[in-house]
Amino acid sequence: MTMRRLAYRILDPHEHGRGAAAFQTAHHCFVGGGIAAMVLMTIPGLDAVQRVALQTVFDVALAFFALEYLLRLYVIPEAPWAHPGRPWRDRWHWLISSASLVDVCSTWLILGATALAIEAEPVRLTSVVWLFKFVPYSAGLSLLANVIRNARSALLSVLLSFVIVLITAGTLAYVFEHQVQPSTFGSIPSALWWTIVTLTTTGYGDAVPVTIVGRILAGCVMICGIGLFALWTGILANSFAEEIRRRDLLRTWDLVTKVPMFSAVGDGTIAEVTRLLRPREVPEGYVVMRRGEPGDCMYFLVSGEIEIRVRPNVRLGPGDFFGEMALITGRPRTATAVATKYCVLLTLHVTDFRHLAARKPELTEAINREAARRLAEGRHAGA
Amino acid sequence: MTMRRLAYRILDPHEHGRGAAAFQTAHHCFVGGGIAAMVLMTIPGLDAVQRVALQTVFDVALAFFALEYLLRLYVIPEAPWAHPGRPWRDRWHWLISSASLVDVCSTWLILGATALAIEAEPVRLTSVVWLFKFVPYSAGLSLLANVIRNARSALLSVLLSFVIVLITAGTLAYVFEHQVQPSTFGSIPSALWWTIVTLTTTGYGDAVPVTIVGRILAGCVMICGIGLFALWTGILANSFAEEIRRRDLLRTWDLVTKVPMFSAVGDGTIAEVTRLLRPREVPEGYVVMRRGEPGDCMYFLVSGEIEIRVRPNVRLGPGDFFGEMALITGRPRTATAVATKYCVLLTLHVTDFRHLAARKPELTEAINREAARRLAEGRHAGA
Amino acid sequence: MTMRRLAYRILDPHEHGRGAAAFQTAHHCFVGGGIAAMVLMTIPGLDAVQRVALQTVFDVALAFFALEYLLRLYVIPEAPWAHPGRPWRDRWHWLISSASLVDVCSTWLILGATALAIEAEPVRLTSVVWLFKFVPYSAGLSLLANVIRNARSALLSVLLSFVIVLITAGTLAYVFEHQVQPSTFGSIPSALWWTIVTLTTTGYGDAVPVTIVGRILAGCVMICGIGLFALWTGILANSFAEEIRRRDLLRTWDLVTKVPMFSAVGDGTIAEVTRLLRPREVPEGYVVMRRGEPGDCMYFLVSGEIEIRVRPNVRLGPGDFFGEMALITGRPRTATAVATKYCVLLTLHVTDFRHLAARKPELTEAINREAARRLAEGRHAGA
Amino acid sequence: MTMRRLAYRILDPHEHGRGAAAFQTAHHCFVGGGIAAMVLMTIPGLDAVQRVALQTVFDVALAFFALEYLLRLYVIPEAPWAHPGRPWRDRWHWLISSASLVDVCSTWLILGATALAIEAEPVRLTSVVWLFKFVPYSAGLSLLANVIRNARSALLSVLLSFVIVLITAGTLAYVFEHQVQPSTFGSIPSALWWTIVTLTTTGYGDAVPVTIVGRILAGCVMICGIGLFALWTGILANSFAEEIRRRDLLRTWDLVTKVPMFSAVGDGTIAEVTRLLRPREVPEGYVVMRRGEPGDCMYFLVSGEIEIRVRPNVRLGPGDFFGEMALITGRPRTATAVATKYCVLLTLHVTDFRHLAARKPELTEAINREAARRLAEGRHAGA
Repeated sequence: MTMRRLAYRILDPHEHGRGAAAFQTAHHCFVGGGIAAMVLMTIPGLDAVQRVALQTVFDVALAFFALEYLLRLYVIPEAPWAHPGRPWRDRWHWLISSASLVDVCSTWLILGATALAIEAEPVRLTSVVWLFKFVPYSAGLSLLANVIRNARSALLSVLLSFVIVLITAGTLAYVFEHQVQPSTFGSIPSALWWTIVTLTTTGYGDAVPVTIVGRILAGCVMICGIGLFALWTGILANSFAEEIRRRDLLRTWDLVTKVPMFSAVGDGTIAEVTRLLRPREVPEGYVVMRRGEPGDCMYFLVSGEIEIRVRPNVRLGPGDFFGEMALITGRPRTATAVATKYCVLLTLHVTDFRHLAARKPELTEAINREAARRLAEGRHAGA
Repeated sequence: MTMRRLAYRILDPHEHGRGAAAFQTAHHCFVGGGIAAMVLMTIPGLDAVQRVALQTVFDVALAFFALEYLLRLYVIPEAPWAHPGRPWRDRWHWLISSASLVDVCSTWLILGATALAIEAEPVRLTSVVWLFKFVPYSAGLSLLANVIRNARSALLSVLLSFVIVLITAGTLAYVFEHQVQPSTFGSIPSALWWTIVTLTTTGYGDAVPVTIVGRILAGCVMICGIGLFALWTGILANSFAEEIRRRDLLRTWDLVTKVPMFSAVGDGTIAEVTRLLRPREVPEGYVVMRRGEPGDCMYFLVSGEIEIRVRPNVRLGPGDFFGEMALITGRPRTATAVATKYCVLLTLHVTDFRHLAARKPELTEAINREAARRLAEGRHAGA
Repeated sequence: MTMRRLAYRILDPHEHGRGAAAFQTAHHCFVGGGIAAMVLMTIPGLDAVQRVALQTVFDVALAFFALEYLLRLYVIPEAPWAHPGRPWRDRWHWLISSASLVDVCSTWLILGATALAIEAEPVRLTSVVWLFKFVPYSAGLSLLANVIRNARSALLSVLLSFVIVLITAGTLAYVFEHQVQPSTFGSIPSALWWTIVTLTTTGYGDAVPVTIVGRILAGCVMICGIGLFALWTGILANSFAEEIRRRDLLRTWDLVTKVPMFSAVGDGTIAEVTRLLRPREVPEGYVVMRRGEPGDCMYFLVSGEIEIRVRPNVRLGPGDFFGEMALITGRPRTATAVATKYCVLLTLHVTDFRHLAARKPELTEAINREAARRLAEGRHAGA
Repeated sequence: MTMRRLAYRILDPHEHGRGAAAFQTAHHCFVGGGIAAMVLMTIPGLDAVQRVALQTVFDVALAFFALEYLLRLYVIPEAPWAHPGRPWRDRWHWLISSASLVDVCSTWLILGATALAIEAEPVRLTSVVWLFKFVPYSAGLSLLANVIRNARSALLSVLLSFVIVLITAGTLAYVFEHQVQPSTFGSIPSALWWTIVTLTTTGYGDAVPVTIVGRILAGCVMICGIGLFALWTGILANSFAEEIRRRDLLRTWDLVTKVPMFSAVGDGTIAEVTRLLRPREVPEGYVVMRRGEPGDCMYFLVSGEIEIRVRPNVRLGPGDFFGEMALITGRPRTATAVATKYCVLLTLHVTDFRHLAARKPELTEAINREAARRLAEGRHAGA
């Protein structure tokens, strides 16, 4: 592996190797430390020692991100999307990507201002953009982004209702209150401030209606606010449930396509197999199958760990499958399988499997081929 | 197409043509601009230039809406619900519809006040009603309206509980606090103001209980408020899920009825076909079917775009279907289909289809008719 | 019908006749008016005329409820739960029921105080209990009560978490703040007031932490509050969905048991029929079945209205069924059915029905008996 | 039973015997009383009598917990997880468990401080940790803990979004407001205080933006806060639904494994039986089965109580099953079963059962064995 390849793998957010883990820890610490230093430096009346210490932390983080940026630019030809032979065009594309712009708007802006001897104080605040450097490392954020994108049109309708209620209530509040309280309700923009504070049930208390109609209006605005918020919650809850269901289906599909004996058959068959699988959860220490018992189903391991008790023992991890010999030979289990952790399994019953095989001759062929190969290898994990 | 017909199509909120799109953009800008001008004009101490600028924006919007109103009145005989030969009776019905009343209560009221030289300032505020001109253009708002209508009775029960808690707690707060704080809790109506501010967890802080029992009551009121709000949210979340499910079912039904070969058969059969369809999502670039492979299902495209690789290539959009030749001829696919965007498909498996056909002779006839027509046309998209 | 029977039916909350409707309107007006009068009378500085008017409204409501109470006591022997021949024992049971106690604690307490010439002002406030007189008239409230009862144990666990967070945070706030702000955080009970105001995100602003640790604690308390509230919402949303599902199942069951031909067969068969029914919704004007078409299913009307186009036309309402002739005779429809409103139907497919009949000889018998009866009657609604 | 065994059973949170119930009541009272005393003792200006009373309550609770702790240490060899013959090693393991640390950090710390004559006032506050002594007694809390654990990664993503919004908005608020309001927005940490109070919609009102951009920012922060909160709620609602579904599945499984005739067959068969069971709810007084009727299913009682009307009557509780004779003999019911409370039942239809038996010879054997045993015993509950 070349030096550049190694550097690429260390910088890749999806890598879990030792170097990558160390880099990620350092990266997260520098983001946290740099922003903390920037935040604390705005406190008036720090003494010289504190100021120097914070400035040092900030400058080290700054240097780290500048180096990281240059390194990322250097390793671009190693990316899977890079085109061999035209590294500079790929680099240019990365330079104008959002990942690069995060650094351009913070790290390089601060460095530029320092170089040009511009007063660094306000420019330093742009380092808050570093927070977005966390985004590529969080799988959950992309899930949330999908949830919001799917529910986009319904959420925008709620926002439109929100604006309609806001402006209508603001105008009414102005009408009811502006003669009694000219300082806080003296114009519709001022009244809108009260309305948004009330509609979100924040309620600072800096503007409060005093007339009776104003207070009745306030009550209605609060209840509308709660109602709109409840709608918003309902929409997001449904969108989240849908996204989770979709992700689970894709995971099942991925697991099925990993089984060698299915790799020869088409997507249509895999779709049917996916529908026939049933999830099952077993606690730590559970005996999933026992040597000598009749075997009636095969298992796909979604998460957890299974120990196949053959000589020597075999440990299976997420994505592995076992017990498929029962579907092929119809003979008793040749090994015992024990869950060494809490496991999520997908089971495929032999009846469902045979029913499927009867209608798909290409699957029967794949079965026979696989059965021959397994027996030749003398592999026992299949059980 | 007559001039009036053209004008009708430009004004129709459900049109997406060029003229309609330009009109909608102008319309939305004038609603936004007119209301913004009205809001800003209430700021005290504007100088003469600002005032004239805002008044001009407002007057232009006003003129636009007046013209739009007259135009809508003129084009009514083109509406699908209009009765030929009696345009004035239809116009009268539109005049008393809610769409017209929005303009009567704002545009024409302001114009009338100006004509009668009445002080325009307070009348101008009625232009806030223009916000409701957005409603016919938003599909999402009608969804939300359905969600609330379906859950109406449960939401009203929560509102009744809200009122019971509100008045009971207001009375108790009056009992506990009116001797200690006669200015803020001196009567039950005053205590109700505190109660609603607390029950919605707004908490302005202008009225706060100081006695121990008053504070314990306040804690209970806050928890009740959160509980009622949670109930409200739960109701809306369920109603939303139900409405989405219903809309999806209707969409599936609509798609099925678009397939020419199903148009000859009755609703009962379409209902069964709808139940047999299975949704499937494919990413951009996914090969849905491949030329020469055995075909085992047909596809309905719900959203996204599919490219059928025949000579010349055919692009299919939402509502189109393909792969139906497999259900008719039983021969391998004659074309390759690739998703050019993220697509949502509905698939109908050949087994399900044949099972259905065996019980419905009228469907078999429709199949044979369609197969003959396709082969005669030499159309390849069917694949 | 005796006078007492008539009075009973007028007072029954589940009656919808003319007299009952008139009584209910009056009842609701008196509850609203009486409580409004009580609330408004607490405003200081009312003039004599206002005071007399309010007192009159209140006294009329009081008299109405006293009469209603006596009347209810009188009609008890007409109640379905009454035991013939022992009216006074039944009356005694009603006297100590919650329905009666609502009046004892308000109406009779106020009348008693007036009779004894005790100062009426504070006693009058007990009329707030009249609000609970709405409860027997609201079907939604009993649904909400079930929702809360089903989720009781989970809600109590959230409440226990709430108390744990409340007291722990209150103690910490006392530790952090009591030296800086002895007036607002001078004891744990005082600090608890701040904590509950913060945990429910009410935020009056009368007590605000000023130390840095105090403010960090406040941030944590707010986030915990939102989290607990979210849990509460999630629990109620699930409980609500479950209760709605259960109610729908019971409604389906009720509909099935109303079909005469099922009345002869056992609960087991009805349970199976219930599982085979599929809901279907049709818009106004939809032709559900058409004369001369082959009939493949029967329909149960859950809500809406169906017009059977025979001579003379027959209108069917919720709970009615039609199209069952197709399941019995296998001949084409003899009538057309049109939805005159938006309808929710339950459909039973002939295949499902025959499959069931093959396994249940008693159902076949019931079918033959019903078919014979229908044909003899010449009834066409069955179609 | 030895003395130590008896003490163990009294202390066991999962026991429901008389002694255990009495101990639990005392335990809960002492936790409540002790913490109440600690809270009230912080009120300044208590007189001597009050102070002594509270101190006494607190000291009694303290003594009780000290004794409880020693007793728990003594009975450890009786725990099911204890290793015979090495009591001290087991005790050491318990000493460093979280259950023990709760007492070490409160009870023993206070006792130690008293013994060393350190000022008891601040140390006494640690007794707030006693609240966690409720945790082992609450089944609901472990459910909530699972709900939160399952949704952990999504919740953390929302928290990360929360932190990103918080710090970004805090920096912007500082930029917009620090020149106008140096006292409340004079540094980013100060501005963060405003931001968190606004983002959680608490709104104390101690810091409020006054510039126009600051107020627009505030509006955005409030809406973001509501959106994040809604996401959080949606995640928890889905996680809760999932956890409830899983718990119900486990409960069904447990019930099935309790049926003696299934105890001989493997887990695979039990899994299939579990899938075939259908829940059914019956009201009080409902006749579940009737003597002489043909029997078509067997019942598992999940909750409630069933009375089998044989001589003498038999009462069945949760976990019991009945009506299984119908699956074995095919003869009419020999007894009537009535629900004496609202019951949740699981039903297994004879068709499903026979279908299963045909594919599982070991089940047929178990059936014959059971049938013989029942007839020999002359047991009627099976009916």
